[in-house]
Amino acid sequence: MKRGEQTRNIILEQTAILFNKQGVAGTTMSDIMAVTGLQKGGIYNHFASKDELALAAFDTAWGHVKERFEQLLFPRQNSIDRLHALLNLFLSYSDNPPIEGGCPVLNTALEADDTNPALLDKARGAIQEWREFIVRTVERGIKYGELRPETNADMLADMLVASLEGAVALSRIDRSVQPLEHVLSFLRNYLEREVRISS
Amino acid sequence: MKRGEQTRNIILEQTAILFNKQGVAGTTMSDIMAVTGLQKGGIYNHFASKDELALAAFDTAWGHVKERFEQLLFPRQNSIDRLHALLNLFLSYSDNPPIEGGCPVLNTALEADDTNPALLDKARGAIQEWREFIVRTVERGIKYGELRPETNADMLADMLVASLEGAVALSRIDRSVQPLEHVLSFLRNYLEREVRISS
Repeated sequence: MKRGEQTRNIILEQTAILFNKQGVAGTTMSDIMAVTGLQKGGIYNHFASKDELALAAFDTAWGHVKERFEQLLFPRQNSIDRLHALLNLFLSYSDNPPIEGGCPVLNTALEADDTNPALLDKARGAIQEWREFIVRTVERGIKYGELRPETNADMLADMLVASLEGAVALSRIDRSVQPLEHVLSFLRNYLEREVRISS
Repeated sequence: MKRGEQTRNIILEQTAILFNKQGVAGTTMSDIMAVTGLQKGGIYNHFASKDELALAAFDTAWGHVKERFEQLLFPRQNSIDRLHALLNLFLSYSDNPPIEGGCPVLNTALEADDTNPALLDKARGAIQEWREFIVRTVERGIKYGELRPETNADMLADMLVASLEGAVALSRIDRSVQPLEHVLSFLRNYLEREVRISS
């Protein structure tokens, strides 16, 4: 890796964490200079503006989340097990988070929703990827006789994403894993009792 | 109402909306001066700092949410109907929100969680009020034979708050009421089928 590329990566990794913890508006160039050890010129050499950096840093954060999810998904083949892998991704925010500061998708979306359409688009795209994973998994599970055919894939997708995002947020607010464990316990039980076809 | 009190109320009402839409860090004194029509001195006359204003503005926003909830709750006596009133509070964010910019509790909590402990405490207190309402309602419902005695009040409280908060967020991100409607439909169905005792 060339030196310029290394510097660019350091900036992205460090600011992705800062933005996730403090928000983009809550992070100053001085904060970014402090964590990267770079001068202002060294940062602007790679990113024309804080907004451009925020877009690239979201991709870095989301890349960490997806990498973790791939690890949890492998080598699960059964569709219910694959849905449980998504639950475990959110559980990991409490003990070994893919990135510090909570879920970057919800943090970014709620900061950007009234202020930054380009950044909101990134967060919306990430949520859409989760929903499509769930819908695809449910459709495949129904086809292979693992899930009840009456399962409403779109409704389940919104329900899982909403409750998991909300649960990570509650656990961060409470500084306790309990809300997340309550929600995971509810959802696991629901998937086993109402969605899985017992073999 | 005295003139000073009127001015204070105007500042609180206007900045509560600004903070809810843009975040506290994303709102400048110039923004506050623009929406209130006041000079900087006129604002500092009532609030010593933006942080002090943020704490008071949260109380204003939360006051609007609670006022709406009281309207939806009245005159429901049955405990299931009282839980449905909470669902309807969150539905109101899509058509007639108690305050513009999404749920002030989640917005505030996620902005403040790594940066502003006093403001985070306010948001945590609000969430706690919802949870206590749910737990109290469930316990009362079990006592009066309206709800199944095996209902886990604490788990249901976390599940309802997490999924409703997540649903409002998803609907704002998508600019569509559909995620919220999916989640509400799921929860209504769950309350009717798994929690209510049919008479």
